[in-house]
Amino acid sequence: MAAHSEDLVAAATLDPIRAAPPTQANGHEEPPAKDLDYRALFLGDQAENGPIFKELLSQLVDEHIGWRQNYMPGDRAGITVRDETAPEYGAAQVRMREVMTELSQRLRSGSVPWNSAGRYWGHMNAETLMPSILAYSFAMLWNPNNVALESSMATSKMEAEVGDDFAKLFGFDEGWGHLSADGSIANLEGIWYARSLKSIPLALAATLPEAVEDKTEWELLNMSVEEILNKLAELTPEQYDLVKAASSRSGKNLNRLGKWIVPETKHYSWVKALDIIGVGLDQMIAIPVSENYRMDIQALTATVEELARTKTPILGLVTVVGTTEEGAVDQVDQIIALRERMKNEGLYFYIHCDAAYGGYGRSLFFDTDGRFVDYDELAELHHSHGLFPHGVTVPEDVYNGYRAISQVESVTIDPHKMGYVPYAAGGIAIRLKEMRNVISYFAPYVFEKGTNAPDMLGAFTLEGSRAGATAASVWAAHRCLPLDVSGYGRLIASGMSTAHRFRDFLADLTFAIGDTIVRAYPLHNPDFNMVDWVFKADNMTSLTEVNALNEKVYDLSSYLAGHEYNNIFITSHTTFSTSDYGNSPVGFIKTLGFDEAEWESVKSVTLLRASILDPYLSSNELFNYYTTAIKAAFSERLTEVLSS
Amino acid sequence: MAAHSEDLVAAATLDPIRAAPPTQANGHEEPPAKDLDYRALFLGDQAENGPIFKELLSQLVDEHIGWRQNYMPGDRAGITVRDETAPEYGAAQVRMREVMTELSQRLRSGSVPWNSAGRYWGHMNAETLMPSILAYSFAMLWNPNNVALESSMATSKMEAEVGDDFAKLFGFDEGWGHLSADGSIANLEGIWYARSLKSIPLALAATLPEAVEDKTEWELLNMSVEEILNKLAELTPEQYDLVKAASSRSGKNLNRLGKWIVPETKHYSWVKALDIIGVGLDQMIAIPVSENYRMDIQALTATVEELARTKTPILGLVTVVGTTEEGAVDQVDQIIALRERMKNEGLYFYIHCDAAYGGYGRSLFFDTDGRFVDYDELAELHHSHGLFPHGVTVPEDVYNGYRAISQVESVTIDPHKMGYVPYAAGGIAIRLKEMRNVISYFAPYVFEKGTNAPDMLGAFTLEGSRAGATAASVWAAHRCLPLDVSGYGRLIASGMSTAHRFRDFLADLTFAIGDTIVRAYPLHNPDFNMVDWVFKADNMTSLTEVNALNEKVYDLSSYLAGHEYNNIFITSHTTFSTSDYGNSPVGFIKTLGFDEAEWESVKSVTLLRASILDPYLSSNELFNYYTTAIKAAFSERLTEVLSS
Repeated sequence: MAAHSEDLVAAATLDPIRAAPPTQANGHEEPPAKDLDYRALFLGDQAENGPIFKELLSQLVDEHIGWRQNYMPGDRAGITVRDETAPEYGAAQVRMREVMTELSQRLRSGSVPWNSAGRYWGHMNAETLMPSILAYSFAMLWNPNNVALESSMATSKMEAEVGDDFAKLFGFDEGWGHLSADGSIANLEGIWYARSLKSIPLALAATLPEAVEDKTEWELLNMSVEEILNKLAELTPEQYDLVKAASSRSGKNLNRLGKWIVPETKHYSWVKALDIIGVGLDQMIAIPVSENYRMDIQALTATVEELARTKTPILGLVTVVGTTEEGAVDQVDQIIALRERMKNEGLYFYIHCDAAYGGYGRSLFFDTDGRFVDYDELAELHHSHGLFPHGVTVPEDVYNGYRAISQVESVTIDPHKMGYVPYAAGGIAIRLKEMRNVISYFAPYVFEKGTNAPDMLGAFTLEGSRAGATAASVWAAHRCLPLDVSGYGRLIASGMSTAHRFRDFLADLTFAIGDTIVRAYPLHNPDFNMVDWVFKADNMTSLTEVNALNEKVYDLSSYLAGHEYNNIFITSHTTFSTSDYGNSPVGFIKTLGFDEAEWESVKSVTLLRASILDPYLSSNELFNYYTTAIKAAFSERLTEVLSS
Repeated sequence: MAAHSEDLVAAATLDPIRAAPPTQANGHEEPPAKDLDYRALFLGDQAENGPIFKELLSQLVDEHIGWRQNYMPGDRAGITVRDETAPEYGAAQVRMREVMTELSQRLRSGSVPWNSAGRYWGHMNAETLMPSILAYSFAMLWNPNNVALESSMATSKMEAEVGDDFAKLFGFDEGWGHLSADGSIANLEGIWYARSLKSIPLALAATLPEAVEDKTEWELLNMSVEEILNKLAELTPEQYDLVKAASSRSGKNLNRLGKWIVPETKHYSWVKALDIIGVGLDQMIAIPVSENYRMDIQALTATVEELARTKTPILGLVTVVGTTEEGAVDQVDQIIALRERMKNEGLYFYIHCDAAYGGYGRSLFFDTDGRFVDYDELAELHHSHGLFPHGVTVPEDVYNGYRAISQVESVTIDPHKMGYVPYAAGGIAIRLKEMRNVISYFAPYVFEKGTNAPDMLGAFTLEGSRAGATAASVWAAHRCLPLDVSGYGRLIASGMSTAHRFRDFLADLTFAIGDTIVRAYPLHNPDFNMVDWVFKADNMTSLTEVNALNEKVYDLSSYLAGHEYNNIFITSHTTFSTSDYGNSPVGFIKTLGFDEAEWESVKSVTLLRASILDPYLSSNELFNYYTTAIKAAFSERLTEVLSS
């Protein structure tokens, strides 16, 4: 993957390993390319790769120990052999052993078996990549802090490379990215960008009115990000500072910047972000989601047109790629098209894409030359790399949604979700690198006379101190698994493929519990790797009764059941209620046999929810083994619930 | 340390190990208590404790592997022995080895030797506690997410215990605390608390006017946190939600809440926080610092009285315990006294204590029964535990500053600074647990019918997903080293003691570089563990010349010199300029022989800056060894700079 940073020490040594191009000799089907087997990069559901993990960990720790021993090896030691013989020294060691013993006991008795190949399908968790765990453990021994290059020479450079990976992944050729504490913080930073940029024209009007004298207030509030950055580029450094001081950071004009549009399902991080950033929830406009849980484009269009008609400015909009409850992928392309159309009518809004969950999925569309392929090439590309062996394909609307991310202003992407990297690793990418000068607390010219690239990251991030170990961890993941069809694409396709098969499995699932027939009703065909479903007994006549059944099945299939380690299947659940979903679930509850009146009376439906990140289940044997086990678990639980 | 949480599985097994009480038999001096030797808890400046680290790490990894193997041991494996023989599998292993090799090379060639006992004295970094590193590496294998108990049964409880530790440390008997991404995020959360609470009375007036009909607007804007919480406690849940919706989260009234007072040295995290939170930098009032770099109480008093006179509300104030550039400890007691006095005059403001750096220092004042001792008992307490063997004592004004933290509303404390825990681990504590319901997005009554304690942390934190491994890491540190005189107190005293000795060493330091005599001029006596100083040649007649000398010495004593691993002494630097320091440095530059006119002409002074967290240098031999080495490094650098 090409990168913008200058210090890619050994990038040349890390090209993906690939097989010869597929041939069509003898009319046989092309064999899949011999990409890496990503299963070798996990510790393993049953710790199958324990030996290589231990070997590498031990080797890395030894390399660190050698480094400590050989930094000024002639120095007097801080701890002498004699010191170590004192009872206080021994007592501290005993205490440490006691604490580690308790730690181990508490972790082993209070952890969820996310590593299991088929017994944990709930939140967006699976096991994480071994190289990331190793890199974190190793880098932590030095404890670098990526707030400044001074305290993290190695890991700041790794973060710059990861940021370039993100920019490339989203098609931001002039973009930039960095890691953040999590997706909520990245979302907050996204709205910080929007608020700060949108306030610049008003700040220009207040401080340098001649610079924007040709514009009305409405025009000032509808300048595009490019126009704003171009205006700023014309200023002297002193003028730039003056304008920034009068921007939203002054506290002025926050109520004038306009509405912030979110999907009605509004993830709590967006509600919090609007609160914290000071724009306020009164400015929030929620757009209904359609029956497939994507933002309803018709409703959005009507709202945006109405706002334009009433000259109500729009600060920005959040589009979601991979909703946390359904894995739905918004039609980002249609949102971009709407913005283009409205731009011609004088209305412009910032777009942030919340791809915390789905962002890495864009790897599905890059070939190994780093090219985002056309849709009509996609099936062949996937086939040649062995993706989706069970016949699923990525629908064109999902592809189009992903493709259009290149035209939004900023994107949240969480390595700790589909990057298979340990917590806490969020991330953000911006389309134009100069945007960061608007939120920074250092003038751009400071850097020219100061440190060389990579920059002092702390000047451009919401947080201050950040673990360099996180950067090492994400970097190691990206270097082992390229962000293309041969790397993350294959890994993510595996979960998506299993999700589709699981949905089909659920659609056929029927239980006879005594005299009662219970069926599973899966939600729409998944856009990504998440499957939601509901159990219903044929004799149930009210949605309330159905909700109660599913709540109880969840209770037995979760940490609430008690000892997680003995639980034979664990999942999660979610609730769609009118306050967040309007009437979008009506179509689904009709498949359960309920009418709209029942929905209007109960107003919510409880679903079981499985995010399937599993890297193992592409084999039929394993899929059949675990779905048999899951069926048995459901049967047991339905029996328990229905006979109580 | 007593804790509020209910699930302290094995708290009883982890009492501090102590010796018998000291005796005075035979008129001998009391021997120091046999507290743990904290040096046994570090990997060691030269990896002296490498063997026990490796042993425990290996044991913990084995325990995790065993756990994976024995969760449903009869399940079909995700990876078979045959899978492992495929070339794609081997290729992935090769790739992982390549990436780990590059990682190791980059870390070893681009890291700072913070572990050295005496060759890195710069930023507030030292090596971190082994139990914390082990706990992080271990917990990460399960990858818990402390956003919700569901995904972190073990580590959410650990975080609740750590939060209780913080509350106890600051004397918040009815308080609460949690971990955060870093100090900047904790500071942002602090101002989020202040802004949200301060807006509640206006929200009450707007939604339930009869509840506050006896109050003028001025009175509404000067209600204390207790009064506000008492008002809220009288509301029905529905009313509570209504009022919260009309609070600052709505975006209303942000400009009406008043001024935010910071020290003139304004740490960049506060500038960013005021921007992000929407209150804005126009509301910031900067109070000069005194000659000892604490907030100037006279200036503060004058400002507050003037604001009271003009009926300008004050949203809140930041007091700093451990400034990042000087380690200065504010007179929090005098700030509290001022607030008490103004309260009688009808003016009230929220106080946040930024103790990101100095917070753990409060451990110095707790005896092993968890009692915050009186000042007249302190010397004896320290003596009996062997603290400050070289005669330094904590001055009464520093003690008083620390003691008064119990009366502020919220405190930032960074385990990744003086907690000796790896990045990224910030933290916050609040004086009254109910405060958290004001910022949360879940009504308090939801929890009563929902999960049991410990709560769902994500409802009360600025971030969403957070690494449970961080909680395990901080928890392990606190369980090995109690937050009292026998644990963190002793460890922190060690660095403070060395800082004082280093300052004395600098005060006597003279170099003859050719014909030029160069002397070191240390700043004021340190409040904490930080020493700042300046080199000056006797023949230098301008401050500009002195600044240039120190800039060049810094360049040679930092990462800018090139290969850090061969650098024989590394430190950091800072600049005091009039924009941030007013005229506070005048007294200091007079000790260099400059007059006020020179200060007014140059307006800034560059200092070298050493934060000394070192756990090793209490022995005279080691201190002398390293100060001799440091002197040699300075001599070499001064020669290089002055002869070029």
